[in-house]
Amino acid sequence: MPTLGSPERVAELCRWMYSRGWATGTGGGISIRDDQGIHVAPSGVQKEYIEAEDVFLLDGQSLDRPKILRPAADSTLRVSECTPLFLNAYRMRAAGACLHSHSLWAVLAARLASPSGAPGHFTCEGWEMQKGLRARGCFETIVVPILANTPRESALSDTMAAAMAAHPEVDAILVAGHGLYVWGADWIQAKTQAECLDYLFRATVEAHRLGLPR
Amino acid sequence: MPTLGSPERVAELCRWMYSRGWATGTGGGISIRDDQGIHVAPSGVQKEYIEAEDVFLLDGQSLDRPKILRPAADSTLRVSECTPLFLNAYRMRAAGACLHSHSLWAVLAARLASPSGAPGHFTCEGWEMQKGLRARGCFETIVVPILANTPRESALSDTMAAAMAAHPEVDAILVAGHGLYVWGADWIQAKTQAECLDYLFRATVEAHRLGLPR
Amino acid sequence: MPTLGSPERVAELCRWMYSRGWATGTGGGISIRDDQGIHVAPSGVQKEYIEAEDVFLLDGQSLDRPKILRPAADSTLRVSECTPLFLNAYRMRAAGACLHSHSLWAVLAARLASPSGAPGHFTCEGWEMQKGLRARGCFETIVVPILANTPRESALSDTMAAAMAAHPEVDAILVAGHGLYVWGADWIQAKTQAECLDYLFRATVEAHRLGLPR
Amino acid sequence: MPTLGSPERVAELCRWMYSRGWATGTGGGISIRDDQGIHVAPSGVQKEYIEAEDVFLLDGQSLDRPKILRPAADSTLRVSECTPLFLNAYRMRAAGACLHSHSLWAVLAARLASPSGAPGHFTCEGWEMQKGLRARGCFETIVVPILANTPRESALSDTMAAAMAAHPEVDAILVAGHGLYVWGADWIQAKTQAECLDYLFRATVEAHRLGLPR
Repeated sequence: MPTLGSPERVAELCRWMYSRGWATGTGGGISIRDDQGIHVAPSGVQKEYIEAEDVFLLDGQSLDRPKILRPAADSTLRVSECTPLFLNAYRMRAAGACLHSHSLWAVLAARLASPSGAPGHFTCEGWEMQKGLRARGCFETIVVPILANTPRESALSDTMAAAMAAHPEVDAILVAGHGLYVWGADWIQAKTQAECLDYLFRATVEAHRLGLPR
Repeated sequence: MPTLGSPERVAELCRWMYSRGWATGTGGGISIRDDQGIHVAPSGVQKEYIEAEDVFLLDGQSLDRPKILRPAADSTLRVSECTPLFLNAYRMRAAGACLHSHSLWAVLAARLASPSGAPGHFTCEGWEMQKGLRARGCFETIVVPILANTPRESALSDTMAAAMAAHPEVDAILVAGHGLYVWGADWIQAKTQAECLDYLFRATVEAHRLGLPR
Repeated sequence: MPTLGSPERVAELCRWMYSRGWATGTGGGISIRDDQGIHVAPSGVQKEYIEAEDVFLLDGQSLDRPKILRPAADSTLRVSECTPLFLNAYRMRAAGACLHSHSLWAVLAARLASPSGAPGHFTCEGWEMQKGLRARGCFETIVVPILANTPRESALSDTMAAAMAAHPEVDAILVAGHGLYVWGADWIQAKTQAECLDYLFRATVEAHRLGLPR
Repeated sequence: MPTLGSPERVAELCRWMYSRGWATGTGGGISIRDDQGIHVAPSGVQKEYIEAEDVFLLDGQSLDRPKILRPAADSTLRVSECTPLFLNAYRMRAAGACLHSHSLWAVLAARLASPSGAPGHFTCEGWEMQKGLRARGCFETIVVPILANTPRESALSDTMAAAMAAHPEVDAILVAGHGLYVWGADWIQAKTQAECLDYLFRATVEAHRLGLPR
């Protein structure tokens, strides 16, 4: 695998998320943590055009209110509004990367599990792809908490932290009508878990459409 | 983001629209306005092969009947039949770009909202992606007017203008059995709003299929 | 648009067909006619790997049993089994190109129109994309004949010719459980009509799924 | 077609499988046999990033417990957990390549055929794409055995061998909730059969959704 610096990897992963339909319309976001600190994509811009110089570097030592060590080259850019949610993953799980997807399959699976949009849980079992999730097997029941959405993304921080505390075995949180937060020990595990979950969300939706048992 | 001249950007966006299935079969179109004037893709040609020299430049000062300042290099090309509709966006909303998509999701969402193809409205609410639309939030109800289709695209101009006047908060118009017109302050906002709306159209169709509440 | 020789264009269009899912598993085929003769892709090979030197050149003057003017460089290749069907388009319609797609949307639309697989007709009306078909408008009813499939592709030649004679306004023939033949005055029109028909097939299938009126 | 060494081909085919959604989340795998031995992709890594130096070479003479002739350059990599299943194809069918896909269409088709996940058979008939399968025609009934899934992939080896012995005409095995094993005389036939089967799985699922007869 080609070695990339973290800002370049953030840019590459933004294009990858866009190519999967997870970051259209300026949606979605991603962050990677390394020895330098926390690298975060900018807020509200087209993810398919992001380059390394657009990526912010935050102080990785003070996770409650990290300072900006190096802003994006373009001074009109702001750091991702998802940052407080990414920080939950760094603070509570020692994650090395966290991404936020607007995948339609995530949103549909959450709505199927909780049609009203109220807090709840997505569950599935019996799929091989569950084995791509940290310490999980294919015959277990997978649970992903669903949070109610809020007008401002940053306001989700406390409910996300509470759901993470209640589910220490889970590396992902769904937000109703909105999308998915998922993390891992490094960007590789975060990407792997994101892809496995997206498969599970779609498989669950498609099996429901076909009238098949869960 | 790489800096491109407007004709090059029009060509790039034509390929992007084709790649999303919005401009197959010579369908769709796009226009960008800048200091030079109004750049418009040609009519009835394969959008996936368009190059900068195929793009027309129209006078941006006289929006009622703009003259051609620079035709396409190939003298057999004609300016997009969508031009009168793009001009509505420039005249009534001071838009900087307008695009026309033949997205199947737009067409299916319109048909679901108005099965007969008569004029009506697409509505949705509760999706995060609504926040990518100008001045809209995720808990509001989004409304997009639906026009009846006509045999000649240019004949839609007056009904489109009337719908735009009736809905000053909306930057998009659906045409039954046909597609979407969407614009923005610049090509970036036009593209962002196009992607957010396409997500909302598909989400609404998929949620309907799953028997989920609106 | 870049100028390509016909063998190079055949190779390019094979990759395009593969990218749309119309030519996976060695399925599908394409032919272009020019002053040199009839260029045909080889039979039963992976279309996504075809290069110009793999394309056959047949005599364009004797359309009943054209001789091979230039075989593929690889002597193990055979000319496409679709050739007699492509010749129908050259002989009866003076076509400049003909392609054969295994699109799943074509096959599903045909099966929806004729569930038993017996000969019949696909019809649709009211879609803007109908305007991409030769001399058709968006409010007309489009008819595409459906043939029963046969074990050997070449055996379809007579039934295809009969359906073409009965429908002089149509540039396409569906084969039940199999796919689509579509042609045009040149490769551009053949590609455009192929994309418009594929949209119409999918739109008809999706509208049916949504319980919408035809 | 460009000539590639087998390790390069394995890497190319891993990217191809990823691009089709058959190898996301580190899932899937592939092996090619040539005069040098058996080339196998590594286990549990992102297939879209694999390069030739990541591919293992096993002894092709002793198919019961082949030794590693050349490990991957990265000493942390392990040989694919699918290896015992690939060896079934080499041992029992003299295959030249075998691949393992996590295609959702394979999994849904298997679940439709056996909703409980118990061993069973997928069947279809009447599709042209059946002709891409070894020695099969479009009017025959295609049968693909379905195995129950097991927590460890290698534990499938004996049940797969038994299903292969019971179905000498079949070059593929489905695993419930998991995916597909498919092989061929060389990588070209393995790829062709994989694409034809994926089409047949999807066609069967889509026809079922449309309420069409099998």
